[in-house]
Amino acid sequence: MSEGNQSIAQTVAAIAEGHLTSRQWVEHCLERIRENEALGIWSHVDEERALARADEMDWMRKDGSAFGSLHGCPIGLKDIIEVKGMPHGCGSPLMGEISKANASLVDALEAAGAVIIGKTETTEFAFLNPARTKNPHSLEHSPGGSSAGSAAAVASGDVPVTIGSQTNGSIIRPASYCGVFAMKPSAGIIPRTGVFEQSPTLDQMGLFATSLEDLGLVVDALSVHDSRDPHSIAAPRPSCFAGAQAEPPMEPNFAIMTLPYSDLQSHACTEGFREVADSLEGRVEILEAPPTFEQLIEAQRTIHLTEAFRAFDSMGFIGNPQLSEVITKMLAEGQSISQGNYEEALIIRDSLTEFFDNFFEDFDAILSPSSSGAAPLLSEGHTGNPIFCTVWTLAGLPSLNLPILQGESGLPIGLQMIGRRRDDARLLRTARWFMTTLFDEGEG
Amino acid sequence: MSEGNQSIAQTVAAIAEGHLTSRQWVEHCLERIRENEALGIWSHVDEERALARADEMDWMRKDGSAFGSLHGCPIGLKDIIEVKGMPHGCGSPLMGEISKANASLVDALEAAGAVIIGKTETTEFAFLNPARTKNPHSLEHSPGGSSAGSAAAVASGDVPVTIGSQTNGSIIRPASYCGVFAMKPSAGIIPRTGVFEQSPTLDQMGLFATSLEDLGLVVDALSVHDSRDPHSIAAPRPSCFAGAQAEPPMEPNFAIMTLPYSDLQSHACTEGFREVADSLEGRVEILEAPPTFEQLIEAQRTIHLTEAFRAFDSMGFIGNPQLSEVITKMLAEGQSISQGNYEEALIIRDSLTEFFDNFFEDFDAILSPSSSGAAPLLSEGHTGNPIFCTVWTLAGLPSLNLPILQGESGLPIGLQMIGRRRDDARLLRTARWFMTTLFDEGEG
Repeated sequence: MSEGNQSIAQTVAAIAEGHLTSRQWVEHCLERIRENEALGIWSHVDEERALARADEMDWMRKDGSAFGSLHGCPIGLKDIIEVKGMPHGCGSPLMGEISKANASLVDALEAAGAVIIGKTETTEFAFLNPARTKNPHSLEHSPGGSSAGSAAAVASGDVPVTIGSQTNGSIIRPASYCGVFAMKPSAGIIPRTGVFEQSPTLDQMGLFATSLEDLGLVVDALSVHDSRDPHSIAAPRPSCFAGAQAEPPMEPNFAIMTLPYSDLQSHACTEGFREVADSLEGRVEILEAPPTFEQLIEAQRTIHLTEAFRAFDSMGFIGNPQLSEVITKMLAEGQSISQGNYEEALIIRDSLTEFFDNFFEDFDAILSPSSSGAAPLLSEGHTGNPIFCTVWTLAGLPSLNLPILQGESGLPIGLQMIGRRRDDARLLRTARWFMTTLFDEGEG
Repeated sequence: MSEGNQSIAQTVAAIAEGHLTSRQWVEHCLERIRENEALGIWSHVDEERALARADEMDWMRKDGSAFGSLHGCPIGLKDIIEVKGMPHGCGSPLMGEISKANASLVDALEAAGAVIIGKTETTEFAFLNPARTKNPHSLEHSPGGSSAGSAAAVASGDVPVTIGSQTNGSIIRPASYCGVFAMKPSAGIIPRTGVFEQSPTLDQMGLFATSLEDLGLVVDALSVHDSRDPHSIAAPRPSCFAGAQAEPPMEPNFAIMTLPYSDLQSHACTEGFREVADSLEGRVEILEAPPTFEQLIEAQRTIHLTEAFRAFDSMGFIGNPQLSEVITKMLAEGQSISQGNYEEALIIRDSLTEFFDNFFEDFDAILSPSSSGAAPLLSEGHTGNPIFCTVWTLAGLPSLNLPILQGESGLPIGLQMIGRRRDDARLLRTARWFMTTLFDEGEG
């Protein structure tokens, strides 16, 4: 069984060697899901389908003809990702039809031998209106959003890995609040065909797991090219599993950028972050963000809301009374943005991309908080502030949440590590060095 | 340079190590293509695009962020496979529009780092009406069909690997005539989305190369799941590159089935085939094909022509004067087949599948000629008889052409080796054992 701290690769190897069946693994997960029902993590679970699929993978293992990197591994998908035969909920009463086709990332998971358990709760259309999910560390707290169920499903031990999406801070922030590892790879690594579109130039896919190695293994399986997604990279992908296990050729260099919104950090977050920086001693440089960074949050909002308005307009949803007030307001704001302002924001983004193309000559990774602090209370009615993810997502950079800090309440806070675009394997290698050096060696 | 007998994996490794660039490899191929122009192999070559892509792969290699299994490798595609931005010729004046999207197998090749050189000539809509291509071994002879240009492109050394398709005998037969290795993997291994559809339940993709190892390497890159193709397997794929390099756990057993049409074999083909069987001594058993096999050729024709008629009808092509007489006649025959006869043929096929599911308990592979003999003369106006491929394709079994026999004229004839469905890696392993034992060890 995949108890304790076995990696997915180890558990899959146990299946290969006949020490465990996929059915046992899946049954274990289904049991956890039933135990954790009060957390409100799943919008749809198909036990029968998952067990039949597990049996198929077990049969293939006996048969010996083929074995995948995720052979028999249970997995959950944010409910904005289409799975043929499952309801496509998107966290909205406007949706919920049974999908007729798989998202292309689901095809990739199936080719790797994964077992789709079901769909995890999302905020309404992956925006800000909270899902029903509770934080597994504290039932009074939010798991964050929008990938609320995906983050909580890994934190609660329901499944070893889940897929989510991030347009602004929807993977890294909930991972921070839920205390799990997460990765949002470079834009274009994981195809988005068959995923609810919120903002075609900002939406990016990612995943939650309990270790860097698991993130690497699963992102490799998801790293397929689909030219129907205009951002999908028509070229080889970084080898992330290898990256998550590699030694860097020399000790990495880190940068911390003082961002205009760092005053939003909670005291515990600031203190924890400073301790990390101190423990890195000579390996970290603190840089003033260039003045253009001032405009970035606004530029992101301009792009995001303009594109969201267009996406919802094309679905005929504008003005629909079943949309929540928070989305309705955001869409109205998107509608009011002029084409000129939108294009200006795109130009600002282009300059940001150029800036980062050069930046990583000198640094292996940037360090940042993953969120302003620990999870907000559910009673606050929001999913927390994504601002600490905005710039990196806007630039399409790969980023990780490392669950290593703690807030005032004892709830987790994540450290964010950001790498060079399309150099996701190096980011994982750098993060592995960081975790090993600071934690296994007792310096943290 | 990829001269002589370097494998694709070795050449790609040379690129990884900086001993060779993709640009050099691609330029070498483009030069060969120009030298071999009289062979009429290519319907479209885009030099500029290929060189730009090669440069991109060389840049990625320097950059170090990602490296694919086919990094910088030139490849040709049968002109029924859509490549965004290239004309979709299909060997017919009715076609030729610029494709707006990639076939999903092209996406897979691009994710592996391949360089698409262009499109290879096909018979008219992959049927029987010959392409303009000549056999590289003799300009008076046919290269076979329908994957005429793909077989000839490898035989002539234009490119190290090409993709083709087979509905009946359109890969194995031209490979036999052109003296190259070829593989038609199990039905469902390589997705067909974006490939001209002739017969949705019979069409299968495959490839040509100069060694078993190259076939294994490239088929692994093509082994992606695409649920838009209803035959695509939603499960892990066999590891064919590993299979092509593996030792079998014990010496394999072969079967030869005496088929009702073996009297069609040429004398040289019969003699060569007998010599192979003799050299395998106690490792081969000769079996009488079960009586139901009598119906198979007819059942295949019923399914093929019924489905072809429906496919052409859905495109509005029936009765079009730009179709050749040979297609027009076949489509008319397809139209005249009753639904009852079609369904009966499907039932016969189901029983065949069942028969083979059990058959490979006792045997590792079946041996058969790949074609009735050597290539026909171009003046005969046809592409040869596919009958020696019909049964195996109908059953969706993986098959290989091994270029080891010789016809009366000194032209090549292939030996066909057929394996268990979805056990493509074992087939390659068995073929490797066969080639090593019979040829490297001088027994052949």
